Amino acid sequence: MLTQQSFEPARSAMLSMDYQTAIVSLYAQDQAGLLERARSVLNGARSSGMAVVHVRVGFRPNLPEVSPRNLLLNAIKSNDKWRQMFEGDAGAIHSEVAPEANDIIITKHRVGAFAGTDLDLILRAQEIDTLILFGIATSGAVLSTLLHAADADYRLIVIKDCCADLDRQVHDCLVDKILPRQAAVMTASEFLEILITKGVKR
Amino acid sequence: MLTQQSFEPARSAMLSMDYQTAIVSLYAQDQAGLLERARSVLNGARSSGMAVVHVRVGFRPNLPEVSPRNLLLNAIKSNDKWRQMFEGDAGAIHSEVAPEANDIIITKHRVGAFAGTDLDLILRAQEIDTLILFGIATSGAVLSTLLHAADADYRLIVIKDCCADLDRQVHDCLVDKILPRQAAVMTASEFLEILITKGVKR
Amino acid sequence: MLTQQSFEPARSAMLSMDYQTAIVSLYAQDQAGLLERARSVLNGARSSGMAVVHVRVGFRPNLPEVSPRNLLLNAIKSNDKWRQMFEGDAGAIHSEVAPEANDIIITKHRVGAFAGTDLDLILRAQEIDTLILFGIATSGAVLSTLLHAADADYRLIVIKDCCADLDRQVHDCLVDKILPRQAAVMTASEFLEILITKGVKR
Amino acid sequence: MLTQQSFEPARSAMLSMDYQTAIVSLYAQDQAGLLERARSVLNGARSSGMAVVHVRVGFRPNLPEVSPRNLLLNAIKSNDKWRQMFEGDAGAIHSEVAPEANDIIITKHRVGAFAGTDLDLILRAQEIDTLILFGIATSGAVLSTLLHAADADYRLIVIKDCCADLDRQVHDCLVDKILPRQAAVMTASEFLEILITKGVKR
Repeated sequence: MLTQQSFEPARSAMLSMDYQTAIVSLYAQDQAGLLERARSVLNGARSSGMAVVHVRVGFRPNLPEVSPRNLLLNAIKSNDKWRQMFEGDAGAIHSEVAPEANDIIITKHRVGAFAGTDLDLILRAQEIDTLILFGIATSGAVLSTLLHAADADYRLIVIKDCCADLDRQVHDCLVDKILPRQAAVMTASEFLEILITKGVKR
Repeated sequence: MLTQQSFEPARSAMLSMDYQTAIVSLYAQDQAGLLERARSVLNGARSSGMAVVHVRVGFRPNLPEVSPRNLLLNAIKSNDKWRQMFEGDAGAIHSEVAPEANDIIITKHRVGAFAGTDLDLILRAQEIDTLILFGIATSGAVLSTLLHAADADYRLIVIKDCCADLDRQVHDCLVDKILPRQAAVMTASEFLEILITKGVKR
Repeated sequence: MLTQQSFEPARSAMLSMDYQTAIVSLYAQDQAGLLERARSVLNGARSSGMAVVHVRVGFRPNLPEVSPRNLLLNAIKSNDKWRQMFEGDAGAIHSEVAPEANDIIITKHRVGAFAGTDLDLILRAQEIDTLILFGIATSGAVLSTLLHAADADYRLIVIKDCCADLDRQVHDCLVDKILPRQAAVMTASEFLEILITKGVKR
Repeated sequence: MLTQQSFEPARSAMLSMDYQTAIVSLYAQDQAGLLERARSVLNGARSSGMAVVHVRVGFRPNLPEVSPRNLLLNAIKSNDKWRQMFEGDAGAIHSEVAPEANDIIITKHRVGAFAGTDLDLILRAQEIDTLILFGIATSGAVLSTLLHAADADYRLIVIKDCCADLDRQVHDCLVDKILPRQAAVMTASEFLEILITKGVKR
C-alpha cells in the first residue's frame, strides 16, 4: 500500500471526472461538502501550476458512439430520461466546479476516461507522468480510469473524499482496499497540505 | 494489387478528411472539380445508407494537444498564420462538402484520423468493417489513416481523384504504387458505378 | 444487473488469466477445487468450439517492460523472490489447466490483459465479440481486464468460482456488486449448464 | 524538411525491422552492403548505450492473428510458400544483424511495429522519446511504423541506406519526399558521424 506519492506539479495533471449537474445530484449524499472539497483541490491544483482536466460524458445526436453490445450505454441510449442526464444543463459540469480559462475539457463516451478520447495524447504531449484524480462514481469513472492509468505507468493519487458512489460499502471497499494497491489514496485536505509543502499558497 | 473491394453499405463508412476551407484552397489544383467529385461521392454514400464521417483538424485554445517533440505540429503552433488555418471559417469544413444532419464529425490533432480520436470506437460500435476514404493531403491524412486502418483489419477503398497533394509526383507514386497494396484505389465515378450496381439511385 | 449474457460460441473466447503455478499456490484457498472448476470450463469451452486464450505474466531478461513509475511492477523487478514467481516452472501455466494444441497463449506485462498485448488484435481478427473470463486475482487481472473489455464493447461473462483473491471480502464485493454492472457473473456449473443448452456435450 | 534531429542516446532506441533471412534475400539488391551497413549502425547504437530493438514478423501456429479482411496477411496465411518465409531459419533474424545479449526482440503480426505489440509500452517504460529506424521494406514496415511514431510524438531518424524496397522508384519517392516531412533522413555513415560527435567510439 502506498502512503504518499511524490510528484512534480509541472509534470502532473488533476483529473476531475463526471462532475456533471445531474450526476452530482444523483450520486452525492452530501452535495455541498463534495462540491466544496472538489472546488478546493481544483483551485489548489491551478495555483500549483499543474494542468487541470475536466472529463465529462457526452454524446453526438443519436449516440453513434454506443454499441448494441454495451449494456450499460445501451440502457442510457434507449431511455429518454437517462439520456437527458447527459444533455443541456443536466449534462454540463456543475457550476461550483466549472472549468476555468486554462483548463482542458475532454468528452468521453465510455466509463473510463482513456477509452476513445485524446486524454493520453494530451498527457504525453505535455510530458505529464502523474495524475491526481477524483470523480463520480468511485466504482465507475474513477475505478476504470485508475486501472487503465496504472497499466500505462502514470503515478497516481486519488482524492477519496471527492469521490462518491451510490453504494457506500462499495466506495469503502474501493478506497480502503483496492485503489491503494496502485495509487496513493488521500483526503482533499491531505492533498492541500502537500501542496503547501511545495510552496503553493492557499 | 486489389482491383475491387466488395463491401456492404450497412457495414461501411465514408471518411472525408481535412476538407477544410483553408486546406482545400491551399492544396487543390482544380478546386471546383475536386469539391464536385467529393460532393458526389458523399451524396452517393448517404443514399446508400452508409455512415458518413467528416474528419477535421482542430485544437483547443493554446493547443495543449501539441508536443514540443512533434515538429510538424509545433511549426503550426508557433506560427500565427498557420494556426489560423485551423480556426474559424478557414478551419471549417468547406461549404460545398459540408456535413449533413446524420453525418458524424470527428476532430483530430494529428496527421492520421485514428490517433487520439473516437474514430475506432465509433466504427466498432457501428460494426463497420469497411472504409471508403479520401482527403487532403494524399501523403498526409490519407496515407497515415489508410496504413493504420489496414493494420486494424478494415477493408479499404480510396477515391483517388478526391485526394490532393501539393506534389503531383508524390500523389501519383502513392495512388499508383503504394496505396493499391492495401486498398482498392478507384475514381469517384468508378465508385458511383459500384453503388448503382448495389441499387443506389444517383 | 445482468442475469445472463447470451452468446454464440463461434464469436466467443474463453480467457483464463494468470493461472501460473506460483500464483495459484499463493492465491488459492482451495487449490484443488479451483483448478478442477477451471479445468472443467476450459474443456467445456473447447468442446463448444470457442477460442481458448491463456494469458500469463512474463518478462524478457532484465524486465525492460517495467517502468520505474509503476510501483507494483517495480516491486517485482527489484525483488528476486517475486521476480522468480514469473520464471521457469513457477511462472508456467499450472499443469492442471495447461494449454492444449489449439489454444492461444498471450504473455502480458501489466495487470490487465489488453495493455501492450495482441489480445485485442487476435479477438478482432477472429471476429470475437464475447469474452468468458476468469483468473487470479479477482481484484487484479480479472477486474482490470473486464473494465477495459467493457469499454471496448465486448459482451462479458465472469466465472466467479474460478476467480480467487487473497482478500475474501474484496473478492465478494467485486463479484457481488461491482462486476455484475458490466458482466453476467455465474458459477462454473451454471456456465456448463448453458453450454449444454447449446448442444455442447459434457 | 528536417536536416538533423538532435537526440540523447539514453532516451533513444534503434529499431531494426523485418531483417529476417528470407525477407533480406527477397528484397535486397545489394545484400552484403545492406547487411554491413545495418550491422555497423546497430553496433554504433550499442556502443552509445541506446536501446536496440529488433522487430520481426511472426505468427502462432494456424495464424490466429490474421483476419479474413486483411488481404495482405490473408495472402500469406493461405500460401504455404509465403507462410514459410516467416518460420524456422527463413523467419529468423539474419545472422549478420542478429540480436545480442541486451537487445530487445519484438514479434509483430502486422505491417507496422506498433500494431498489437508491446513496443510502445517498452519505449514508455524506458522513457524513450527518439527512434532511429530502418528496415525492409521502405514502403512497408518503415513507412507504417514511422507514420504511427510521428503521430505518437517520437523524434524520428531514418537510416535510408539500411532500408530496401522491391521498387526502387517507390523507395526514392519515400526517402526523398515523404519521410523527410516527419523524420531526419540520413545515411548510415552520416548517423555514425553524429555518434562520434557524441563521444561514441567506433
